[in-house]
Amino acid sequence: MGSDSDLPVMKAAADVLKDLGISFELTVVSAHRTPMRMVQYATKARERGLKVIIAGAGGAAHLPGMVASLTPLPVIGVPIKSSNSIDGWDSVLSILQMPNGIPVATVALNAAKNAGILAASIIGSFDEQIGNQVAVFKQKLEEEVLVKIENLKKQGWDNKFD
Amino acid sequence: MGSDSDLPVMKAAADVLKDLGISFELTVVSAHRTPMRMVQYATKARERGLKVIIAGAGGAAHLPGMVASLTPLPVIGVPIKSSNSIDGWDSVLSILQMPNGIPVATVALNAAKNAGILAASIIGSFDEQIGNQVAVFKQKLEEEVLVKIENLKKQGWDNKFD
Amino acid sequence: MGSDSDLPVMKAAADVLKDLGISFELTVVSAHRTPMRMVQYATKARERGLKVIIAGAGGAAHLPGMVASLTPLPVIGVPIKSSNSIDGWDSVLSILQMPNGIPVATVALNAAKNAGILAASIIGSFDEQIGNQVAVFKQKLEEEVLVKIENLKKQGWDNKFD
Amino acid sequence: MGSDSDLPVMKAAADVLKDLGISFELTVVSAHRTPMRMVQYATKARERGLKVIIAGAGGAAHLPGMVASLTPLPVIGVPIKSSNSIDGWDSVLSILQMPNGIPVATVALNAAKNAGILAASIIGSFDEQIGNQVAVFKQKLEEEVLVKIENLKKQGWDNKFD
Amino acid sequence: MGSDSDLPVMKAAADVLKDLGISFELTVVSAHRTPMRMVQYATKARERGLKVIIAGAGGAAHLPGMVASLTPLPVIGVPIKSSNSIDGWDSVLSILQMPNGIPVATVALNAAKNAGILAASIIGSFDEQIGNQVAVFKQKLEEEVLVKIENLKKQGWDNKFD
Amino acid sequence: MGSDSDLPVMKAAADVLKDLGISFELTVVSAHRTPMRMVQYATKARERGLKVIIAGAGGAAHLPGMVASLTPLPVIGVPIKSSNSIDGWDSVLSILQMPNGIPVATVALNAAKNAGILAASIIGSFDEQIGNQVAVFKQKLEEEVLVKIENLKKQGWDNKFD
Amino acid sequence: MGSDSDLPVMKAAADVLKDLGISFELTVVSAHRTPMRMVQYATKARERGLKVIIAGAGGAAHLPGMVASLTPLPVIGVPIKSSNSIDGWDSVLSILQMPNGIPVATVALNAAKNAGILAASIIGSFDEQIGNQVAVFKQKLEEEVLVKIENLKKQGWDNKFD
Amino acid sequence: MGSDSDLPVMKAAADVLKDLGISFELTVVSAHRTPMRMVQYATKARERGLKVIIAGAGGAAHLPGMVASLTPLPVIGVPIKSSNSIDGWDSVLSILQMPNGIPVATVALNAAKNAGILAASIIGSFDEQIGNQVAVFKQKLEEEVLVKIENLKKQGWDNKFD
Repeated sequence: MGSDSDLPVMKAAADVLKDLGISFELTVVSAHRTPMRMVQYATKARERGLKVIIAGAGGAAHLPGMVASLTPLPVIGVPIKSSNSIDGWDSVLSILQMPNGIPVATVALNAAKNAGILAASIIGSFDEQIGNQVAVFKQKLEEEVLVKIENLKKQGWDNKFD
Repeated sequence: MGSDSDLPVMKAAADVLKDLGISFELTVVSAHRTPMRMVQYATKARERGLKVIIAGAGGAAHLPGMVASLTPLPVIGVPIKSSNSIDGWDSVLSILQMPNGIPVATVALNAAKNAGILAASIIGSFDEQIGNQVAVFKQKLEEEVLVKIENLKKQGWDNKFD
Repeated sequence: MGSDSDLPVMKAAADVLKDLGISFELTVVSAHRTPMRMVQYATKARERGLKVIIAGAGGAAHLPGMVASLTPLPVIGVPIKSSNSIDGWDSVLSILQMPNGIPVATVALNAAKNAGILAASIIGSFDEQIGNQVAVFKQKLEEEVLVKIENLKKQGWDNKFD
Repeated sequence: MGSDSDLPVMKAAADVLKDLGISFELTVVSAHRTPMRMVQYATKARERGLKVIIAGAGGAAHLPGMVASLTPLPVIGVPIKSSNSIDGWDSVLSILQMPNGIPVATVALNAAKNAGILAASIIGSFDEQIGNQVAVFKQKLEEEVLVKIENLKKQGWDNKFD
Repeated sequence: MGSDSDLPVMKAAADVLKDLGISFELTVVSAHRTPMRMVQYATKARERGLKVIIAGAGGAAHLPGMVASLTPLPVIGVPIKSSNSIDGWDSVLSILQMPNGIPVATVALNAAKNAGILAASIIGSFDEQIGNQVAVFKQKLEEEVLVKIENLKKQGWDNKFD
Repeated sequence: MGSDSDLPVMKAAADVLKDLGISFELTVVSAHRTPMRMVQYATKARERGLKVIIAGAGGAAHLPGMVASLTPLPVIGVPIKSSNSIDGWDSVLSILQMPNGIPVATVALNAAKNAGILAASIIGSFDEQIGNQVAVFKQKLEEEVLVKIENLKKQGWDNKFD
Repeated sequence: MGSDSDLPVMKAAADVLKDLGISFELTVVSAHRTPMRMVQYATKARERGLKVIIAGAGGAAHLPGMVASLTPLPVIGVPIKSSNSIDGWDSVLSILQMPNGIPVATVALNAAKNAGILAASIIGSFDEQIGNQVAVFKQKLEEEVLVKIENLKKQGWDNKFD
Repeated sequence: MGSDSDLPVMKAAADVLKDLGISFELTVVSAHRTPMRMVQYATKARERGLKVIIAGAGGAAHLPGMVASLTPLPVIGVPIKSSNSIDGWDSVLSILQMPNGIPVATVALNAAKNAGILAASIIGSFDEQIGNQVAVFKQKLEEEVLVKIENLKKQGWDNKFD
């Protein structure tokens, strides 16, 4: 992530990876404040055995795209709504609108949790066990909704479908 | 892709996959016109051995997100600028702003080529040969720029850096 | 509605239907978390005797459009401003900008009350009694304004028109 | 519609109604140029036996909302992208963002065809034959896609799903 | 104004007119809730001796434009940011983007004070005394700034220009 | 106007004033290229007998607001969509969003014709003959529509209202 | 700056200049409230020995561009998000989108600190000592990040890169 | 500049520098395609004697901000509207909205000419001769307008001010 102030948002990615039993590392790499560290981090990522990089940043968010230019690994970008952001448009567009040749897999504004799930589904595509866990995770989403439907009924909101 | 009218855009994804020697299939699956086909396609994708799904759609673009809700595989979304699009914002936001739990790896507007490269880098993360090819692909981008720099010099635009 | 967190917004639709004596059911159907339930709900809606479906959802809001693709009934979409929404644009455009063939009758951001009134006016077009009630409802809006005008006068804001 | 210059767009609504065998009338009613005509047209619409009103307008598009304020009938609004429109945002927001009490069923920018289909689905909710026709119409959309899938295969774009 | 909930914003227009000694009336005329009252108010405005009409409204704000279509008087529109407004864009565009033939003199979002000053400057163009008062008003703005400059200096923010 | 390149747009204001028999002058006053001329023009406008100033400008359009800060006369601003404009938003917001104290009567994007009509309606508020001409002008708009309605009927588009 | 209400934002520019030992002056110059003062201030700036002008303003922010039109000095513009701003877009576009010939060096919304740093880097380009200080300033940014990385590790967020 | 496809836009910067007798170099440095070249170019810029860097880029435009993070020199950013740009918003926001500490002096969309003038005014602040040339350049803008005013008069557009 680009700054330690992004931790409250980015922690959700770490949490979901932990839940799914996927090992990860979390640190600060700032495109603008530590550009050489970013170059080192990105160029060594593949040889260090990383499989996916999640990069979150706000405002004129250059970290995800710059990392993507320096590694063949898939890079997931999390647009973060910073304090002087123009409604989040700046980070969304800075990460999403990459030129031909250097894609960044962009998720929704502040959606670090989804970045973690996407990383898991990427790994799960080649690791059957993790793939199954992602499938289970999505099933649980369904089960949680079914519980909520029952709760609604108990509150008196009836429907004749169920 | 959501419609055969998206082929001129989406072909770029097929082209880059072909160049990188990655096998793929291309067909039309419309969230709104063939919803049951979409359900079938997405739910069977993993067992059929697909590793990554690229889904392109325009306007209120529901295909990528709906497919992502029906499979544990990673889904790459390509926002396509349709004929009555409001500057592309509709397809970008319909694909990008997925709720927690169901991410879509969104690329830039009309950036099907980048969707292909992203798919390759996802596969390349676990298949060393393809990973190397993605690395070579990015290196070629650099080499193409170096040729252009030489051309600029020949046109009389000098610089003292090189 | 797509989530039970939408209830505070969507309740306004239920309230107005109750006031107008129109029977209805309210439940959670999530496009992304319970896609198969959504398919079932939508495809059976007409044969179950529903006349109009109101679907509210936020972010990349696919529920209204997907339901509309699965039923010949009129579907009213309520864009809900979710917590990480980009000012509501995402849900508005995801619901409004449907492709040719599959319309969604979209109302204003968070305007569940208007969705209820629209449903009533649709039913009222074919049920004279309910049609009259909608007419009375709109008349009451006028009468409420007339009371407010009197109140303004009492507060000393005069006008020579009345 | 608000102006005869809207005819090229609005004709699509007339065409779809004609195809579905639904009788309709088409004329110009301008909120700004013929306000009294608009008042007359809207207030008499129900007693004249109209069931649904489709109103298309561009720029600061007041026609759909004003008509809705003058009739208990459901009003479908078609935002039209006029010549000096700011990307269509003006007509979309002028029609969509109606205050509580007076909904307009808004469809996508320039989507007059969808307005016609929505009107048909509203009528079809109470007229079984037209309801069936709407169902058939949506089925045909699916069939058209299936033909296109075959065409794609013939062009050499194969898939192992079908 | 379109609703009594607009009074906290619109009061600023009344205040400035009172300060400048210009007689005025203030009432609620709702385009959507009291359309016939609006027609009456607007069509009789000139014969009743009004010189300028200030109309404030929020959301899909039709009042200023509809009044302008019913009177030859100049109409000043105040876009009000309503509770479910999409950042004020809806009221701004609904008032500003009037079609050829029916202008509305639009001021900034929530800028009722400026609407009052604009009305005064319109009247002042033909009434020398009021014109002088507007000139004095603008001079006072300058004098207030000069006081603030002195205050800044006293706070230790020096400059060598003054 | 701010540049002679604005003439094709701004000519429409001159045309409508000519049609209504209102004398006017037209020249270039650039806020950025001739700032001192602008100061001179604006500060002398009232004593020279001008009643209303129409100022059109594009991009970061400062002319209307700066003129308004230098004269007690009403200033009408015409946002012009310049060649590198960001969809016209820049000129619209630069003219519309004036701070408290210095209003600009803003019309729609490129709507110089409406600026002319607004100027006429301002003058017509105090000059009965011109006021009548504005009323007639708006009546003609209605008559033009009625002719178009007849034409539509002749083309076979029938309605039972007329 | 355009108003003393901008001081809480603009103070950050003063602070950074003070830190870097660059002498400066701070005062209020309002384009709209004190237009003649603005003309005087800008036209005399170069002969008074100023090297760079920082101008902050909100809403329809004309100060930076008008100052730039009156001096050959470089002008840095700070868009300030005023109380009735439309999300800051008005001040950003009013300052950024200057016509050819009159540039304003625009920084991010409310980014007065960056305006101060930009001014320092401009001066530092020709004053070696200040240039060195800017270099040191940017190095410190890096060092601050390195401390934060250590803190993250202490909090248990490990990484194998460092 | 980030790509040779930017040359048609960026040439305007070179032209104005040539006109003002300021020596410059022009080359391609791509943040995404040649990241290491960018690092080299930026870190060596000051020691090579450059005074100002102009960086133009489109889409997710990272070049200006990344260069600014690697040099204490002032960096001018030119947002370029690329082929799949979302109306230019992506490049504008990617360049403008830099985080605290790393400013980029952003000019208008495609405004390479203004980037050249801004560079000249920066240099001219410390080089009297070039400062005078910038002053003359701005005076010429005024003279060009005066010629156009005369032309307008010859075309019959009279005014009583001149």
